Amino acid sequence: MSFMQALRSRWQQADTLVCVGLDPEPAKFPARFAADPDAVFAFCRDIVDATAEYACAFKPQIAHFAALGAEDTLLRLVAHVHAAHPGIPVILDSKRGDIGSTAQRYASEAFDRYAADAVTVNPYLGRDSVQPFLDRADRGVVVLCRTSNPGAGDLQDLVVDAGDGVARPLYQHIAEKVARDWNGHGNCALVVGATWPAQLREVRAIVGDLPFLVPGVGAQGGDVEAVVANAKSADGTGLLVSSSRAILYASDGDDFAEAAAAEARKLRDAINRCR
Amino acid sequence: MSFMQALRSRWQQADTLVCVGLDPEPAKFPARFAADPDAVFAFCRDIVDATAEYACAFKPQIAHFAALGAEDTLLRLVAHVHAAHPGIPVILDSKRGDIGSTAQRYASEAFDRYAADAVTVNPYLGRDSVQPFLDRADRGVVVLCRTSNPGAGDLQDLVVDAGDGVARPLYQHIAEKVARDWNGHGNCALVVGATWPAQLREVRAIVGDLPFLVPGVGAQGGDVEAVVANAKSADGTGLLVSSSRAILYASDGDDFAEAAAAEARKLRDAINRCR
Repeated sequence: MSFMQALRSRWQQADTLVCVGLDPEPAKFPARFAADPDAVFAFCRDIVDATAEYACAFKPQIAHFAALGAEDTLLRLVAHVHAAHPGIPVILDSKRGDIGSTAQRYASEAFDRYAADAVTVNPYLGRDSVQPFLDRADRGVVVLCRTSNPGAGDLQDLVVDAGDGVARPLYQHIAEKVARDWNGHGNCALVVGATWPAQLREVRAIVGDLPFLVPGVGAQGGDVEAVVANAKSADGTGLLVSSSRAILYASDGDDFAEAAAAEARKLRDAINRCR
Repeated sequence: MSFMQALRSRWQQADTLVCVGLDPEPAKFPARFAADPDAVFAFCRDIVDATAEYACAFKPQIAHFAALGAEDTLLRLVAHVHAAHPGIPVILDSKRGDIGSTAQRYASEAFDRYAADAVTVNPYLGRDSVQPFLDRADRGVVVLCRTSNPGAGDLQDLVVDAGDGVARPLYQHIAEKVARDWNGHGNCALVVGATWPAQLREVRAIVGDLPFLVPGVGAQGGDVEAVVANAKSADGTGLLVSSSRAILYASDGDDFAEAAAAEARKLRDAINRCR
């Protein structure tokens, strides 16, 4: 089953648009993990198992593992998702971007080494830097479009003239490129941040039903109702509304897993009420 | 000693502008490494030791280690450069870019875990995504500006209007931003590809003496004379002319290290004749 098939199946059958982000920060773990030499795996596994029911995808953020030297932990965590929760796709959030020969190595890192179903990529180096990812038709390629951070507009909002006489912000140009040119295998999606509802609406108008990975609800302050109203696709799906810290660190007590599940369920329900 | 001090010292004292890129591809290694379980380290160490005399910096490309699960090898390799060749800075070529809280983890990966002296970063997410790197005043931050790949122009050449009434390509806008706003600690440099001499000249005119990391000579076809003529700074330095495959795989026989040294020396001399 391809990433897109798995995602659509999950949207329909589990009736959830929640993507659970896995950004382990050991300093925020409950005290019971303090003496556990495998704390990062154990914490993330418990979160995965507790929230799987409410998740259309899991999204480990690779920097949080790399800074800890925990590549092996990430490998085991993805394997755990595949084994314990088959059908829930894993998106490796690594935002890679490099020249073609190097991009092939990054595609191998994401898809072969970690067995991720999809990966986030940065479009700044152009089409050929994304091609090795696009070529893996069964995997998803989630291209940065309009991100959720305060400085997102520094480049992404710059008005560009792509030579067709239409002036528009860079992120809209990217959206159109991806939807029209890069999506030949139907395996593309876009990152569009929850913190900018107007941009969500504009991008949706450009790209039809292309899926959006939407970070920025929860800790970053994005509003769920505004996201769903502006960004859902024609059939009321089309979204992976990603929440990491608000779910992972809902409680720092022994009830952390139940609290994470409650947060994920609350987000799922809040989304479903609006669509 | 900061990255910039080390780099300037190396330019002056070793009289070389060559940056040796370390992109290990085991399939291209000499036969003698076939049975070596530590082949990636041994090959790269031999290349480092053979070419150090001609190098102003070493640049390991992280994807080539990550795809092999060889993070520990990269760690030992950087440590070897620092121990055996003190004063030659190491640039971790990882082109990271993410929201602030995640960028801090990437900065920790590069500077704390790997002890790199500098790192390449992608500017697409804006100033706050680069800030955690900029804040490390003793380390170098090498921002992608105009890259060397065929698709570089897809985004980087788009003409933007930054609201100041001046229309210019995106890469020139980035160059100006970095030189004027991001370089408060004097620790910034730019990636500008050797394959586009006209762009090198334009960027040099915008940014004064800011160092350029220039990939694309050698395997990618960039011309040394055109690079130096268009991109050197006022004092005839300002460049890290990076070559990877042409040096690493100069020979696949037992003389690979000598061949690599000869290629590095040839490149150093070709550069020095033009400046």
